[in-house]
Amino acid sequence: MAILNPNFRRLPAQYLFREIERRVAERVASDPSLGSRLLRAGIGDVTEPLPPACVAALHAGADELSRHETFRGYGPYTGHPFVREAIVAGEYAGLGIDPSEVFLSDGSKGDVGHALEVFAEGNRVGIADPVYPVYVDTNVLSGRTGPLGADGFFEGLFPLRANAANGFVPEPPDRPLDLVYLCFPNNPTGAMIDRAGLERWVRWAIAHDATILYDGAYADYVGDPALPRTIYEIPEARRCAMEFRSFSKSAGFTGLRCGWTVCPQALEGRLPSGERTQVHPMWTRRWSTRSNGVSWPVQRAAAAVYSPEGRAQVRALIELYRGNAQRLRHGAESMGLRAWGGMHAPYVWVSCPPGLDSWTTFDRLLDRAAVVVTPGVGFGPSGEGFVRISAFNSRANVEEIVRRLATTDLTR
Amino acid sequence: MAILNPNFRRLPAQYLFREIERRVAERVASDPSLGSRLLRAGIGDVTEPLPPACVAALHAGADELSRHETFRGYGPYTGHPFVREAIVAGEYAGLGIDPSEVFLSDGSKGDVGHALEVFAEGNRVGIADPVYPVYVDTNVLSGRTGPLGADGFFEGLFPLRANAANGFVPEPPDRPLDLVYLCFPNNPTGAMIDRAGLERWVRWAIAHDATILYDGAYADYVGDPALPRTIYEIPEARRCAMEFRSFSKSAGFTGLRCGWTVCPQALEGRLPSGERTQVHPMWTRRWSTRSNGVSWPVQRAAAAVYSPEGRAQVRALIELYRGNAQRLRHGAESMGLRAWGGMHAPYVWVSCPPGLDSWTTFDRLLDRAAVVVTPGVGFGPSGEGFVRISAFNSRANVEEIVRRLATTDLTR
Repeated sequence: MAILNPNFRRLPAQYLFREIERRVAERVASDPSLGSRLLRAGIGDVTEPLPPACVAALHAGADELSRHETFRGYGPYTGHPFVREAIVAGEYAGLGIDPSEVFLSDGSKGDVGHALEVFAEGNRVGIADPVYPVYVDTNVLSGRTGPLGADGFFEGLFPLRANAANGFVPEPPDRPLDLVYLCFPNNPTGAMIDRAGLERWVRWAIAHDATILYDGAYADYVGDPALPRTIYEIPEARRCAMEFRSFSKSAGFTGLRCGWTVCPQALEGRLPSGERTQVHPMWTRRWSTRSNGVSWPVQRAAAAVYSPEGRAQVRALIELYRGNAQRLRHGAESMGLRAWGGMHAPYVWVSCPPGLDSWTTFDRLLDRAAVVVTPGVGFGPSGEGFVRISAFNSRANVEEIVRRLATTDLTR
Repeated sequence: MAILNPNFRRLPAQYLFREIERRVAERVASDPSLGSRLLRAGIGDVTEPLPPACVAALHAGADELSRHETFRGYGPYTGHPFVREAIVAGEYAGLGIDPSEVFLSDGSKGDVGHALEVFAEGNRVGIADPVYPVYVDTNVLSGRTGPLGADGFFEGLFPLRANAANGFVPEPPDRPLDLVYLCFPNNPTGAMIDRAGLERWVRWAIAHDATILYDGAYADYVGDPALPRTIYEIPEARRCAMEFRSFSKSAGFTGLRCGWTVCPQALEGRLPSGERTQVHPMWTRRWSTRSNGVSWPVQRAAAAVYSPEGRAQVRALIELYRGNAQRLRHGAESMGLRAWGGMHAPYVWVSCPPGLDSWTTFDRLLDRAAVVVTPGVGFGPSGEGFVRISAFNSRANVEEIVRRLATTDLTR
């Protein structure tokens, strides 16, 4: 009989956002009026329409598929060159990244999991805490951890604790690790690392021969040119980092699906035999064996992000969401709560009122303000005592959320 | 230092279609005139434009993303209900399949590899030979095999030999296996299994508590209603089979990317502890952890396949390609070669001239007829001595290929 992967049993029963949806549906079922008042600031899903430049490119792509002369079937497994070249020109100019090092995909969530396919079991893995749950969950499902420990962390994963004391930016640890997941601007805390901090991580990785898996899904929210938009602004990072990027939170592609990874030619690991070798040929082979590339109209839309109109339209979206984030942060602070993030990220990280845990705060905000947030503990044990508020919303909704926060008492 | 997955080294250096492209590029570089004469009947990539119903749906989907009122971000991880319901109504009516058992994806190639994520290592795996290379390659990359043996098969995989003697339809083996990959209509041989043959496989699977991974990517080419379009026409298959399906070869989605799996609620496996349990919750969890679903305009186009216009347009595409296949089969036979398939499949499977192997026949067809086919040995050791000719082409190209075959001497 087929033997099933036992690691599925290690994970808590519900993926975070499924559990949120379950609680919301349960409340709406018992109080139908709640449905109409509900304002969602939970899951990080964009709310504004696609940039018109991307819509025009989708239409053009659809038309191309309608005619013999312009029909496209299978494309290159890792994306059409014109898209990869546009990404290099738009994101990595002057940083020594070649289009052959850019791998187009249907989104960053998938890529984060796929990355483990080129790494063997037995690596010492460091993961920030709290963090986007997919890093931990994909390590668990692929059998790279032991059971969940009493500290809320899986055996075999080394937590890099982020907390108010370190400004939610963990420093490199004193011990060696082989793979380290970092995410800046951070999901969920909204924290951003500065250049000196990122240089310390890169130096540490080179010194310990570690690979950094750098999630830059929110890079477009970096509003200060002194802050690093990509890890490759630190030149040595080409020797020690893969970067995950996405159009989801910049151009609003959450429903359209497109992202990319950078796997530099200079990145090496070693085989169990001890032989040092490049990661790039394996990552290339991974794509030719596992994928037939990204939908043609979507690739057209992705390239349109880098047209002059596309850039301006994306910039306007980012400004809207960043403005939302700043209002939400002030709104949370107006309740007397401590709040972080929201400056270079679309997320505000809010300390729960004294004595309340993440899910209780979630439930009270849902019941008393009809506002859906995300419980911080869903991002790891160090997220307990916080909630994440997402800035992906219309300005009108954000202003209404801020009004409700100002008049909601969570403490009784 | 990060330890890399050593199984990448087990695979031959080039994925089959990359090697074909390399040889074609090499020949064209040394003889530029070849480029203009080249006719491709190699990779199974459709050549006709998308059905107009699908193009209209893509445009509608793009427009919906352009307006606040109709914008869609993240959808359900496993597809929007309207698409899953259309698939059940169009493909599984009366067969007891529920929309919750249909999982939408960005294509069948990915799904075949993803499936292994829910199965543990240690399963006894049977794979038809010759076959679509992805089944073998994904087993190798995920560490489920030993090294490549002298017989051309990887240690730990049990080959189900398909050959002229069994009409390229292997019978269930005498020994127990846990996972078995079957593909009908078959890629690459074009063979189709009849209902009695499929019943024998399902009975065998139930008796041995095995799971069949059934690749039905070419189901729409089944031209005889007496032949099973889906494994679920055998009712007991719901207890022993996952099915992989695709819009690529029916509605021409190779560049648009959409497919689905069926994972029935009744399908069970066992955990290493011995506990019997459903596969469905694990497959569901796999999708919520690893994916954010399929591009919205593509889901709209997929549903449009089942509109009255869509059905008629897809039927016309299938008829074109099936007519091509029958012409190509006759063309091969006119060279004095034995040929199979092409009746219920877009592939013709041709025996090489006596004394020639697959790659020599490939090279001679390229050099002498400027026709690209696929060497049979690329599909497994039992494919040696054959080439696959793809019917995905315009009728004019097919007629020209048939003319060239009739005047090409491969034997000297």
